[in-house]
Amino acid sequence: MKFSIERAVLVKAANQAQSVVERRNTIPILANVLIEAGADGVSFRATDLDTEIVDRAPAMVERPGATTVSAALLNEIARKLPDGALVNIAADAATARLTVQAGRSNFNLATLPREDFPVMASTEYAANFAAPAPVLRRLFDKSRFAISTEETRYYLNGVYMHVAETEDGTRSLRCVATDGHRLARVDAALPAGAEAMPGVIVPRKTVAELRKLLDDDEAEIAVSVGETKVRFATPTITLTSKVIDGTFPDYSRVIPRGNTRRLEVDAADFARAVDRVATVSSERSRAVKLALDEDRLVLSVNAPDAGAADEELAVAYADEPLEIGFNAKYLQEIAAQIDRENAVFLFNGSGDAALIREGGDDSAVYVVMPMRV
Amino acid sequence: MKFSIERAVLVKAANQAQSVVERRNTIPILANVLIEAGADGVSFRATDLDTEIVDRAPAMVERPGATTVSAALLNEIARKLPDGALVNIAADAATARLTVQAGRSNFNLATLPREDFPVMASTEYAANFAAPAPVLRRLFDKSRFAISTEETRYYLNGVYMHVAETEDGTRSLRCVATDGHRLARVDAALPAGAEAMPGVIVPRKTVAELRKLLDDDEAEIAVSVGETKVRFATPTITLTSKVIDGTFPDYSRVIPRGNTRRLEVDAADFARAVDRVATVSSERSRAVKLALDEDRLVLSVNAPDAGAADEELAVAYADEPLEIGFNAKYLQEIAAQIDRENAVFLFNGSGDAALIREGGDDSAVYVVMPMRV
Repeated sequence: MKFSIERAVLVKAANQAQSVVERRNTIPILANVLIEAGADGVSFRATDLDTEIVDRAPAMVERPGATTVSAALLNEIARKLPDGALVNIAADAATARLTVQAGRSNFNLATLPREDFPVMASTEYAANFAAPAPVLRRLFDKSRFAISTEETRYYLNGVYMHVAETEDGTRSLRCVATDGHRLARVDAALPAGAEAMPGVIVPRKTVAELRKLLDDDEAEIAVSVGETKVRFATPTITLTSKVIDGTFPDYSRVIPRGNTRRLEVDAADFARAVDRVATVSSERSRAVKLALDEDRLVLSVNAPDAGAADEELAVAYADEPLEIGFNAKYLQEIAAQIDRENAVFLFNGSGDAALIREGGDDSAVYVVMPMRV
Repeated sequence: MKFSIERAVLVKAANQAQSVVERRNTIPILANVLIEAGADGVSFRATDLDTEIVDRAPAMVERPGATTVSAALLNEIARKLPDGALVNIAADAATARLTVQAGRSNFNLATLPREDFPVMASTEYAANFAAPAPVLRRLFDKSRFAISTEETRYYLNGVYMHVAETEDGTRSLRCVATDGHRLARVDAALPAGAEAMPGVIVPRKTVAELRKLLDDDEAEIAVSVGETKVRFATPTITLTSKVIDGTFPDYSRVIPRGNTRRLEVDAADFARAVDRVATVSSERSRAVKLALDEDRLVLSVNAPDAGAADEELAVAYADEPLEIGFNAKYLQEIAAQIDRENAVFLFNGSGDAALIREGGDDSAVYVVMPMRV
């Protein structure tokens, strides 16, 4: 194997590979990236056995071939090479070494045989469709913050992507995440070809890797969904991942329908005020009390040791007075998802979950459980 | 006590106080900042018993007085208040609470009595002099990287500031730091009034706090030095610190005088090349080999497991061939101190310490011990 590649291209591919590779590997080959040079360029493949990423990069290939080398080392070397450098990479079968050369720098790296690299088996996918990057970005960005980190509730450790029937009877592509304390439900128009898609729980790590493919507003992402795997592909990068083998709970029962007390508030002002009053409370239980009265919201926190804080906000509220408490962090995270100026809260009683959405728009709704204050 | 203060002024003072306060305090009062409001403004004082900082800030004082409050909490609150806000601060003696109010935000914080706050005792200083901020910045910036982190060698845990006789017979203000593996010695013209100054070891933390006072190129710093304490003051901020109670070793014997093999190299190119070849070596012993031949330097690293790397640099060298090894990190840190384009290395044998300076300038010299490679 022998090829030349631009430093910037190598940096991107090596960085992507390294982020999929787990930091601590007991199996040495899993720390490596599989480099395959062929007639149409070079591919860089990395895996943690659950997630696999393949980046096809342009390169001048002189001699096809393949080998594996430390992803961390390749990434660090690429990063340190001078901007604009042309990098010459060659595998020496006799010595089992990979040489990386650029300018007057020469590196000679240990390799492991390509045959040892666990390439993910191909799958039949039940549905294949295309979605614009901004649509997927919105679906995952607005839901991922609610993913549970409790490993025992493994079926909540991801975003549940599925086809749903919305209240107006149309079908949508929906992402839901929850940790039992708060929930996010985001809908987008169902892309053609997605109708037969099974519901899948996309793991947290895959969501993070996917997010990196979605920055380009013009990109179309090819999505494939099967019972056990999901794939997201740009023209050059393919991310394949196992899905979480579990059943996502019936979230629809969690979403309150009868909440009628309506509060409308500037989302940014609200988030900043929550952040301020929460300052005085101890790290653990950052409970903020919302006291609602006619067009008036008082946020307050009382921490016996450190002190107390309160802040008043002018809001739109025309219902009976209400006092209700929430975890400050949950309120802030939800407020950060609101793209429009105003967030709308719908409350019932002080012991009931609140529903939050952007104005009258039901395509992204959030639920948060109250706390005793 | 009651006063109003601009949010930006409060942020600066509270931040400075918090950086002196130790994160974990077994003595509660040490987590607090002492706020004293008087006719000429408000002062914020924080201490860790070894270092004390006092920031005198402009404020509209309505009622003089003093109290202490959590430095971390005051800092976090100040930071979160809206830009441009006017902050009203008042101590209520009856409830032993401090109220902080800005816009519609109200905070009510626990206090501890001012009498409990350990204000550092005043001292007679043996020497008082003024030095421009850029002069002190250079002295400490170019030496502090070499401070030892070994707590058992406490007398090396700071920068030794003293009056020295330079080789041309003039006296200079000198800063020296070493950890036994490398040494930095930096000279500046002796300011008037510094002649009688005793040599003092300024602790690492004090150096870091001092550094924050030295960013203003126009500032004159009032320096006071005694046997047990040192003080650095701008018109508004006073930093007082105990000095390390120990004897700094006789460093002059460490500085090689007979080294004649002269290498001149672009400092930035050299640092980048060292960084690149060191990539392949394991974190622990980043030994880089320098192989010198006529106008040619080859840097190389050989790590049996990961691989090998080498890089050639065009340099000025006219002596006999030489091979010598150094810790890569030490070489990079020294190269980063070189302000001019070229660094000059003076070598003797491959087992002897090397001397590094900026061109022919002896006002900043570095010594680094070799490693076997």
